[in-house]
Amino acid sequence: MIIVLNRDATQQDIDHIITKVKEVGLEPHVSVGVEKTIIGVVGDDDKMINVPVESFKGVEQVIRVTKPYKLASRDFHPHNTIIDIGTVRIGSEELAIMAGPCSVETREQITLIAKEVKKYGANVLRGGAFKPRTSPYSFQGLGKEGLELLKYAKEQTGLPIVTEVLDPRDVELVESYADILQIGTRNAQNFPLLKEVGRTRKPVLLKRGLAMRVDEWLLSAEYIMSGGNYNVILCERGIRTFETATRNTLDINIIPVLKERTHLPVVIDPSHATGKAKYVPSMALAAVAAGADGLIIEVHNDPENAWSDGDQSITPEQFRDLMIKIREIAQIVGRKIPEPSSVA
Amino acid sequence: MIIVLNRDATQQDIDHIITKVKEVGLEPHVSVGVEKTIIGVVGDDDKMINVPVESFKGVEQVIRVTKPYKLASRDFHPHNTIIDIGTVRIGSEELAIMAGPCSVETREQITLIAKEVKKYGANVLRGGAFKPRTSPYSFQGLGKEGLELLKYAKEQTGLPIVTEVLDPRDVELVESYADILQIGTRNAQNFPLLKEVGRTRKPVLLKRGLAMRVDEWLLSAEYIMSGGNYNVILCERGIRTFETATRNTLDINIIPVLKERTHLPVVIDPSHATGKAKYVPSMALAAVAAGADGLIIEVHNDPENAWSDGDQSITPEQFRDLMIKIREIAQIVGRKIPEPSSVA
Amino acid sequence: MIIVLNRDATQQDIDHIITKVKEVGLEPHVSVGVEKTIIGVVGDDDKMINVPVESFKGVEQVIRVTKPYKLASRDFHPHNTIIDIGTVRIGSEELAIMAGPCSVETREQITLIAKEVKKYGANVLRGGAFKPRTSPYSFQGLGKEGLELLKYAKEQTGLPIVTEVLDPRDVELVESYADILQIGTRNAQNFPLLKEVGRTRKPVLLKRGLAMRVDEWLLSAEYIMSGGNYNVILCERGIRTFETATRNTLDINIIPVLKERTHLPVVIDPSHATGKAKYVPSMALAAVAAGADGLIIEVHNDPENAWSDGDQSITPEQFRDLMIKIREIAQIVGRKIPEPSSVA
Amino acid sequence: MIIVLNRDATQQDIDHIITKVKEVGLEPHVSVGVEKTIIGVVGDDDKMINVPVESFKGVEQVIRVTKPYKLASRDFHPHNTIIDIGTVRIGSEELAIMAGPCSVETREQITLIAKEVKKYGANVLRGGAFKPRTSPYSFQGLGKEGLELLKYAKEQTGLPIVTEVLDPRDVELVESYADILQIGTRNAQNFPLLKEVGRTRKPVLLKRGLAMRVDEWLLSAEYIMSGGNYNVILCERGIRTFETATRNTLDINIIPVLKERTHLPVVIDPSHATGKAKYVPSMALAAVAAGADGLIIEVHNDPENAWSDGDQSITPEQFRDLMIKIREIAQIVGRKIPEPSSVA
Repeated sequence: MIIVLNRDATQQDIDHIITKVKEVGLEPHVSVGVEKTIIGVVGDDDKMINVPVESFKGVEQVIRVTKPYKLASRDFHPHNTIIDIGTVRIGSEELAIMAGPCSVETREQITLIAKEVKKYGANVLRGGAFKPRTSPYSFQGLGKEGLELLKYAKEQTGLPIVTEVLDPRDVELVESYADILQIGTRNAQNFPLLKEVGRTRKPVLLKRGLAMRVDEWLLSAEYIMSGGNYNVILCERGIRTFETATRNTLDINIIPVLKERTHLPVVIDPSHATGKAKYVPSMALAAVAAGADGLIIEVHNDPENAWSDGDQSITPEQFRDLMIKIREIAQIVGRKIPEPSSVA
Repeated sequence: MIIVLNRDATQQDIDHIITKVKEVGLEPHVSVGVEKTIIGVVGDDDKMINVPVESFKGVEQVIRVTKPYKLASRDFHPHNTIIDIGTVRIGSEELAIMAGPCSVETREQITLIAKEVKKYGANVLRGGAFKPRTSPYSFQGLGKEGLELLKYAKEQTGLPIVTEVLDPRDVELVESYADILQIGTRNAQNFPLLKEVGRTRKPVLLKRGLAMRVDEWLLSAEYIMSGGNYNVILCERGIRTFETATRNTLDINIIPVLKERTHLPVVIDPSHATGKAKYVPSMALAAVAAGADGLIIEVHNDPENAWSDGDQSITPEQFRDLMIKIREIAQIVGRKIPEPSSVA
Repeated sequence: MIIVLNRDATQQDIDHIITKVKEVGLEPHVSVGVEKTIIGVVGDDDKMINVPVESFKGVEQVIRVTKPYKLASRDFHPHNTIIDIGTVRIGSEELAIMAGPCSVETREQITLIAKEVKKYGANVLRGGAFKPRTSPYSFQGLGKEGLELLKYAKEQTGLPIVTEVLDPRDVELVESYADILQIGTRNAQNFPLLKEVGRTRKPVLLKRGLAMRVDEWLLSAEYIMSGGNYNVILCERGIRTFETATRNTLDINIIPVLKERTHLPVVIDPSHATGKAKYVPSMALAAVAAGADGLIIEVHNDPENAWSDGDQSITPEQFRDLMIKIREIAQIVGRKIPEPSSVA
Repeated sequence: MIIVLNRDATQQDIDHIITKVKEVGLEPHVSVGVEKTIIGVVGDDDKMINVPVESFKGVEQVIRVTKPYKLASRDFHPHNTIIDIGTVRIGSEELAIMAGPCSVETREQITLIAKEVKKYGANVLRGGAFKPRTSPYSFQGLGKEGLELLKYAKEQTGLPIVTEVLDPRDVELVESYADILQIGTRNAQNFPLLKEVGRTRKPVLLKRGLAMRVDEWLLSAEYIMSGGNYNVILCERGIRTFETATRNTLDINIIPVLKERTHLPVVIDPSHATGKAKYVPSMALAAVAAGADGLIIEVHNDPENAWSDGDQSITPEQFRDLMIKIREIAQIVGRKIPEPSSVA
C-alpha cells in the first residue's frame, strides 16, 4: 500500500500513520520527495483492510498495490482452471458452447431447441426457470416446473444444464437439477447468494454486474471460492455505457485482462450484451477471436413468440451457420469445438 | 407504443405486425411517411410487454410511450406520498435527517452517536448490522447482535431506526427491529428481496443501483409496491461514471426528475456518493437546495477507528455545523428540520 | 512515481528500470515486498513524461503521485485566483451570474434580454455568435454580426460579455469584442485553440469536456496558462453518463474536488447540463449551495421561438424568481450577488 | 417526429402545437390514447430542427424517428462506399491495414518501420507529425519536418500516408503530404476543422469522440460530406467507460451497428483503445472477426524509447505474428489482406 501525503501534512501526522501501520504488524517506509511525502507499506495489504487510512489527517491518496483477491488471482494460481462438466472441460482447448432459449416454456420447446443446438455443436444447454425481470409485470419463469422440463431435455440429449438461481432459498432446489448454477448480472454482488452457491460444489457461471470493474468482479468470485467452491466461470455480458445503439456494450477488451489477472475460465454472452439478434453473430466471432473460453447464446425456434427476450434470440438455422464460422476461427486461435452431431 | 419500420419493410411485414397488435387487443394506426412508415399502438403498452416486436421482420425501432410502472407513477397518484414514522413524516415539509455510523460496533458507540445526532436535529438513526462488503475478507457486520444494539439506542433516544437487510431469509428478523428497511445499491434489482420486503408493511428505503436508469429504479419500487407495501422511499447514493475523483457521482439532477415522475419521497446519501468525508457537507447542502425530502449521512465519533467506511464518515461536531446550514437552506426552499434538542 | 513489478520480473528487469530512471536524473528506491516489488521514483514525475515505463519488461502498473499540472494546481498557488472583469471579481465573495440567450438573434432580442437579466442581478451577459452545433444543418450563429449586436447590448447595459470562440482563426476577432472568451465542451481538448487563447490576456471560460476527468480538465487549463494567460475560469456543464433522463449529468460533486485541487474559479452551467428549462432552477440552487463561484444560465424572452436551445432556456420572469432564492442561499454559504437594479 | 403530451396538456396546448407543426409545412396526426395523447408529425423531421418542441406547454417527450444525417446514411446510399487510395480500396473485400509509429521521430525510424510493416502486409503507413497531447509539457510532434520524413518513407516504400491534422490552419499543408487526413478523437466535434477537411477531396479518417453516440459520430461525418468530400472512413478507437483496466473500452459492438446505419468504411484502432501493447493482438483479431474494414495499429521498432505512446506500440515482430492470424481470420469472414512482400 502506498500512502501519499498532502502538502500540509505535519511530522505529527506522519508519526501517527507510522504508529497505525505498525499496529497491524506492517512495516512503513517513508520517502520525503520534493513535492510529496510518500509512505510505502510493505507486506500484506489485507491487514490494512479495516483501517480507513484516507480519513487520517494529512493523507491525500491511498493506493493499493496488491490485488484484494487471492483465490481468484493468477498470482497465486498460475495455471488455468479447467472445470469438467462431462461434455466439455471448460477452460480447456475445447470451447464451451452454451445455447438454448432465454426461458424454458414447454416440454416441446425446450426439447426441440436442445436437440437442434446439440446437432450443431453446442455442449451445454441454457434455459431459464427462474427469471429476473426488470418489471414485476413481465413473465417470471416457470420455476420448479421449468427445472423439470430442463431435466427432461437433458435426458433426451445428454446436454448438461446451466440455469439461473436468484434466491438463496432456491439454491438447494436448483442445484439438484443444474450442472452449472448461473448468477445473473443483477446478483453479481448479492453476497448472501454468492455465499450460498459457494457452499455447493457445483460450477458457477458468474455474470459481470452492469457497472462492475474487473477487480470487483473477481472479488465476487472470491466470495464463492472462499466458501470452498473453486469452480467459478466468469461471464461477460455487456456493461452499461453512454451508448444506446446496443442494449449494453460488450466489453471484449476484458478477455485479455481477465486472462492476465485470473486463472478462471471466461465465457461471453453476446445475446444479452447487444440485445438484438442481428448483432449476435459478429460479436460471437469477435469473442472467440479474442480468446474467450466459451459462449452462451440465446437460441429460440420461434423468436416472435418467445416468452422473453425474443428480440435477442437467434434461430437454430442462424446458430448452425454461426457455428460453422466459430469452428473455423477457433482453430486459428488454437481452440476447437465439438463436431456437429445428430440426436437419435 | 410506436413501431418504426425500416426502409425494406414490405406490406406483408406491416400486415403481420397489425395482426399481432390486434391479437393483444390494441389498436394499430399506420402512418406512411416520406422516409419511414410508423405504426402507432394506442392503448395500454403493458399488453405488449411479452411481444418481442423488435424481432419482427421490417422493424427498425420500438418506442414505449407510457411508463412501464403504474403504482410508482405520478400519473396515477398525483399527490406526494408521505410516510409517517413517528418522529418525522417523510415527504412532508419537514426533512428526514437520517444519521449514524456505517456499522453498529458496540453499545457505547451506537448510543453515543445516536445521542449526538439527535442533539443536532437528526430524526432517524442509521446503522448497519448486516453489511454488504465488496470483499469477503472485510467486516460483515454484527448481525442480530447489531440489531439488539440498535434497539437499545432507540430506547435511549427515541430515534426510529433505518437498517439494511441483505437476504430474503433475514427480512422477518430485521423487520422486527427496524422502522425502515434499507435495500442497498447492490440489491436494487434483487427481485426476491424486493418481493419479500413488499410483503411487509414497513417503510423501505430503496437505494438506486450503481448503473440504474430512473425508470428501472421506479420499476424496482413497483416490485415492492405491487406486493402491497406502498411505503417506498427512494435514495440516490451516487452513480458510477468515468470520473474517479469521487467514489461515485452523486446525481443531484435526479431529484427534479423523480419529483416529476413519481410521488414517492426522495432522500440523498452524500456519504456513499462521494466516499470522502470532506465532500459530504457541500453535497448535503446541494441536495437540500435541489429539493430533496431528506438526507442520510454517516456520522462516527472516531472515524479513524470505524470498523467500516471511516473514510466517508463525518464527526458529530462536523454534523452539528452542517445542520446549522441545512436548517437555513431548508427554510429558503420551503422546508424545515427539527430544532436541536438534548437527550436526557 | 511508483512502479509496481509483476511476479515474473527478474533482477535484470529491475536493474534496467533503475538505469532508465537514473538516466533522467531521478532517484529510484526499490522495496521488495512479500507479494510485489515496488520501485519508488523520488523527484519530479514530469521528467518521466516521455518514458513509457509501462512498456518495460516486468512492469505491472505505473502510478503517478504528483499532479501533471503545475500552474493550475493549488499546491503551487494556494490562494484563490480572482479575475476582475469590472462588474464582478470572479472567484471573490460575490458570485458571477452570467445570463443571456443561447444565440444572439437580433438587436431587439439581445438588448431586451440583457436589460432584463441585469435588472434581476446578472453581472455578465452571455450570448453565442459562433455556435458549435451537432448537425451541420442547424443554425450556426450570426458570426461577426452577432458580435456587433453583443457590443451594442453591452453599451446599453454596461454588462461585460462572455461569448464562444470555436476556431483559432477567429480568436483575434472575438477577443476584440468579448470580455470573457468561452471554450466549449467539444473544444475542451482542442489544443491549437487552447494555445491561441493562451496567447491573449482575456479571461477564458473553459468548459469541461463531456467525458473529461478532472485532471485532464486541469491540463487543458494548463495549456492556456502555460501560454501566459492565467485568467482561466472552469465551467462544469454536465458530463455524459448512462442516464438519459437529463441530457447530461451535472456533476456537482466536482465543485469541492476542484476547490481542493486548483485555485481557479468554478462556474456551473445548469442549462446545458440538464437540457430542460424545468430542471434549471433546482440545479442552480444546488450549485450555489455546494460552493460554486458563479452560474451561467440561458435566458430567453421567447423560448418557443429561440433559434437554438429553446428547450433549456428559462424566461426572464423565471430568472427573476430564481435570483431571489440564489441571493438567499448565497448568503448562507458566505457569498453574495448584486442587488437587483434598473437600466435607464 | 413523435410528440408525447403530458397528462396536464389542454386542448389549447394541442392546438398550439398543431399550428406550429403546420407552420413549417408538416402534417400533424393526433392520437388520443387512454393514458397519453400523441402527435405524430409526418414528413421530414429536419424541418423541425430549429423548433424547440420540448419547451412547448404540455409536452412530455419528443422522439425523432428519421435519422438526422442524410449523406452518411445507408437509407440514402445503400451500397458500401469504397475509397481507393492506390494500394488498397478501403471498404472493399481487401482490408486496410494501417501501421506505423505513434510519432514520426527520425528519418531512420520512420523508414525502418515503414519497410517492416510493408513487408508483413500493411498497405498504409501511419505516423503523427502534429500530435494532440493531454499535457502541454509532452512532446507535440515534429510538425512540417515530420511530414517531410513521412514523404521520404512513402517514396522508399510506396505506402500511402495517413497522418493527423489538428488545426484548420494546417489543413492545406497536411493535405499536400497526406493520402488520408486523420481527425483525432478530441477533434471529433471540432466543427471548423471538419468543415475545412470537407473542403478538400482527400479521404478523411474520422475517429470517434470519447463519449460520442453513433448518431453524433455520423453527424460529424455529415459535416465533412456536406462540404462535398464524401471520402470519410470511420475509426473506432475506444470509448470512455467506468472500467479503468484498459485505457478506454474498444466498442466492437459498433461495427455491426455502423454497417447497418451507414455505407462508410469502418476501421478499428486497438492501440489507443486498450493503451497496452499486450492487449492489441486479441483486439485486432476480434475486430476483423466482427467485420471491420481495416485496422490502424501502432508499431515501433523500439517501444521503450518511443517519443510517445510507447506503452501501446507493438514491435515489428509482434506485428508479423499478428498479421499471420489476421490473414486467416479475414478469409473466414470473406475478406483478405495483401500478401507479405519485401521492399528492395
